Amino acid sequence: MPLHTPLTDLFGLQHPIILAPMAGVSGGALAAAVASAGGLGLIGGGYGDEAWGGEDWLNREYAIATETSGGERLGVGFITWSLAKKPKLLDVALAHKPTAIMLSFGDPASFSEQIHKAGALLICQVQTLAAARAAVAAGADVIVAQGTEAGGHGASRGTMALVPAVVDAAAPVPVVAAGGIADGRGLAAALALGAAGALVGTRFFAAAEAGGHPNAGERIVAAGGDHTRRTSVVDIIRGKDWPQPYTGRVLVNDFVDRWHGKEAVLTGNLADESARYAEAAATGNFDEAAIHAGEAVDLIHDVLPAGKILSGMTAEAEQILRNLASLPK
Amino acid sequence: MPLHTPLTDLFGLQHPIILAPMAGVSGGALAAAVASAGGLGLIGGGYGDEAWGGEDWLNREYAIATETSGGERLGVGFITWSLAKKPKLLDVALAHKPTAIMLSFGDPASFSEQIHKAGALLICQVQTLAAARAAVAAGADVIVAQGTEAGGHGASRGTMALVPAVVDAAAPVPVVAAGGIADGRGLAAALALGAAGALVGTRFFAAAEAGGHPNAGERIVAAGGDHTRRTSVVDIIRGKDWPQPYTGRVLVNDFVDRWHGKEAVLTGNLADESARYAEAAATGNFDEAAIHAGEAVDLIHDVLPAGKILSGMTAEAEQILRNLASLPK
Repeated sequence: MPLHTPLTDLFGLQHPIILAPMAGVSGGALAAAVASAGGLGLIGGGYGDEAWGGEDWLNREYAIATETSGGERLGVGFITWSLAKKPKLLDVALAHKPTAIMLSFGDPASFSEQIHKAGALLICQVQTLAAARAAVAAGADVIVAQGTEAGGHGASRGTMALVPAVVDAAAPVPVVAAGGIADGRGLAAALALGAAGALVGTRFFAAAEAGGHPNAGERIVAAGGDHTRRTSVVDIIRGKDWPQPYTGRVLVNDFVDRWHGKEAVLTGNLADESARYAEAAATGNFDEAAIHAGEAVDLIHDVLPAGKILSGMTAEAEQILRNLASLPK
Repeated sequence: MPLHTPLTDLFGLQHPIILAPMAGVSGGALAAAVASAGGLGLIGGGYGDEAWGGEDWLNREYAIATETSGGERLGVGFITWSLAKKPKLLDVALAHKPTAIMLSFGDPASFSEQIHKAGALLICQVQTLAAARAAVAAGADVIVAQGTEAGGHGASRGTMALVPAVVDAAAPVPVVAAGGIADGRGLAAALALGAAGALVGTRFFAAAEAGGHPNAGERIVAAGGDHTRRTSVVDIIRGKDWPQPYTGRVLVNDFVDRWHGKEAVLTGNLADESARYAEAAATGNFDEAAIHAGEAVDLIHDVLPAGKILSGMTAEAEQILRNLASLPK
């Protein structure tokens, strides 16, 4: 008994779940696994550089995703301000005839027409009510309302109050909840808030098909939600010039403890520190290298195939919705 | 068809709603209105000074609440670190035979035995998973998991991921969700997350029976959730020595714009600024004086009697739960 919502209708999904297009994590294999399980699998375009997200990479990963999943329910997510510097990557993505393109962290207006002309649907992720209104005006087909609980980049508003406010402002455009959702309880809560589904990141970072270093999933399983934080130090050390108000939520580690709150000092020590950081990232030393993950790590107890994660979340949500209906009495 | 949960069982409530014990807002009239409507009405003990929360005040407001509501489903909420400086206020509260005492923002362990011996139930509000575990160990009968969306004092974790994590850690102790809940969608989402009810603050600040300046409710109705922030400047100007990690969420106004981020300068200018602030607060000049309110202000469109707010929330939640049960198909 799949959950039937405006999101499943619009994208032809079996389940109202979207894979967050996590840079360095959501490659072709993970997107295919989510798509094969009936969700929407978004490949993470990241910063579009050679190692992750560039033209060759995107063509290769999209081909892997298509081959594995059959090519339905796939798409690409971009960091909008980064895509604006490398707009050709949108042509590359659209050439694969994706179901959807997701844009987050910047003004989507200048890309909307091209996306729609290519026959793809436009998903806009927003972090404020003001941005939700702008995304509707830009022609978004779906709005993702992302709360501060989310792993990776985001802003300050919390999921619980942001989602219903965006639902009211965006209607009749469907809204998807993101931030803090890692099990069937979160999915059921998202639907109760008026969302048509959930966008899930961190839970799928601990999937067998996730990209990145193999140690990362186990770190997420071991982590506690009290020990994540939004910070800019990981962007500073990697030379990623994120605009205000976006920060990245990471598991707190030695690197974050050492530098958070000392951003200016870190900026002055980049020559020494960045090589050290790059080596830690390459070797999977996550006491130093960051793992972008959200507050929902408390709810993640195992690394599983993405299809099992998805079917477990939806089955749990269905059970909760059935049980809740018996509360009024 | 009231919503039946472990919270309604434990406290003999008709609806799983607790009035947040807001300092300066939740006096006897508001607590009585919530209790009369079938929720739990918690009087806000605040800092226990003469103007609000002191011994005479508490006796007077509790008497008003009892007279208006019949005396059932009433209690008092204290700021734990402040109560530790004026512990006699707990004797005063317990002499009224409250249903419950709520403690928030500090270690509840030293008060637990006295509260239970007096026949009251102990509600502990927490902002982290670690604090939830400590509250269970201290003998809490109910845990309130408060997310950062909440108005007034709180910390950084978001409601969406904190609530289910606390539910798992505290079981079988019932958990109540707080932060960002202002309508039936939020209440239904709280139940979906595994909570046994919701603690509601800001929505009841815009109640006809709320204490404080009469202009405040209309300010909340007019406010937007993108324009609140957690800050310490309002505590600094009022001489309230809040410990880490607590900050107060307020509607952003001229005062907050001027001083947030310049806390040290403000501390050096207290002599000039604090008289000016006190006058603004007394005259209801909310461009300068703070209104403690949460991100859910987007969902508040009118000042209503508290009983109407409560019955509207619960009726909406019941309708949502019935509708959600038909989603799987």
